[in-house]
Amino acid sequence: MDGVLADVYAHFICLERELYGLNINLADLNGIPESEATPHYHRLVHSEGFFRNVPPIGGSVEAVRMLNEQHRVFIVSAATEFPRSLSEKHHWLNEHFPFISWQQMIFCGDKSVVKGDVMIDDYFKNLDFFAGRQKILFTQPHNAQMDNKDCIRVNGWDEILKLLATR
Amino acid sequence: MDGVLADVYAHFICLERELYGLNINLADLNGIPESEATPHYHRLVHSEGFFRNVPPIGGSVEAVRMLNEQHRVFIVSAATEFPRSLSEKHHWLNEHFPFISWQQMIFCGDKSVVKGDVMIDDYFKNLDFFAGRQKILFTQPHNAQMDNKDCIRVNGWDEILKLLATR
Repeated sequence: MDGVLADVYAHFICLERELYGLNINLADLNGIPESEATPHYHRLVHSEGFFRNVPPIGGSVEAVRMLNEQHRVFIVSAATEFPRSLSEKHHWLNEHFPFISWQQMIFCGDKSVVKGDVMIDDYFKNLDFFAGRQKILFTQPHNAQMDNKDCIRVNGWDEILKLLATR
Repeated sequence: MDGVLADVYAHFICLERELYGLNINLADLNGIPESEATPHYHRLVHSEGFFRNVPPIGGSVEAVRMLNEQHRVFIVSAATEFPRSLSEKHHWLNEHFPFISWQQMIFCGDKSVVKGDVMIDDYFKNLDFFAGRQKILFTQPHNAQMDNKDCIRVNGWDEILKLLATR
């Protein structure tokens, strides 16, 4: 969800400016771990409303709507680390992805227990344990300088749709 | 979680008496679907605090503590149907099963996406889609008159410990 559907970096950058007067450039964050990318990361992710108010990643809503018509789609989100995020993420999905039913939502801590054919994620720590046939890495600053031959890197939802259409 | 770790029937029966003055006998509920077992089911499961205050099933805490020392345990709960239950179930696990970390919690709507070796559940609808080597049905009134040769029925956590110890 975060970093694939939810544009957490845009949210971090806006909140750092709004709340702390800091100007942070997305391009400067390449290669930095997400939790160290902005100075108030920990305060922000534990604050009320953080996950409820994050903007969707461009193109994600329409792309998932299309995929959802042809495939069995599940939204798997690492949410149990931040208990407050559970209901916020549930409401967020209902608002931005109303075509995703409660049966399609999975809030967990460790994605290695989930099975499927295709996984799209921004972390190798999740993709590495996936046993399905295709692992798609969604580019985010924290993974920009990493590589793994088992995964196909995409830079946006348009690329995902092309990739899955040609399968 | 419900019907395996959380004694929802005991909770239903107590709340029906406390709130509505109804005396319901557990033995009379055999074979009745859970949602029809007590008259105020829908009101109760949607009420604030329902999932937070359910008592643990006898023996479950000690049994899961022991299993957790020897196996990779995940608590998989159908929770996204009742959004309020998400944080309540998270807090409930932290209170009664403090040795279960956030990495071991999975709140979902459809358990068919979860993989593992052994599944313990009180519903065939969950066990039927499990691809692991052992499916254990935990007896509850709603499943008392059903059977499935792929599943081993147990009537309590003592039986689960014996079963898994002899494997």
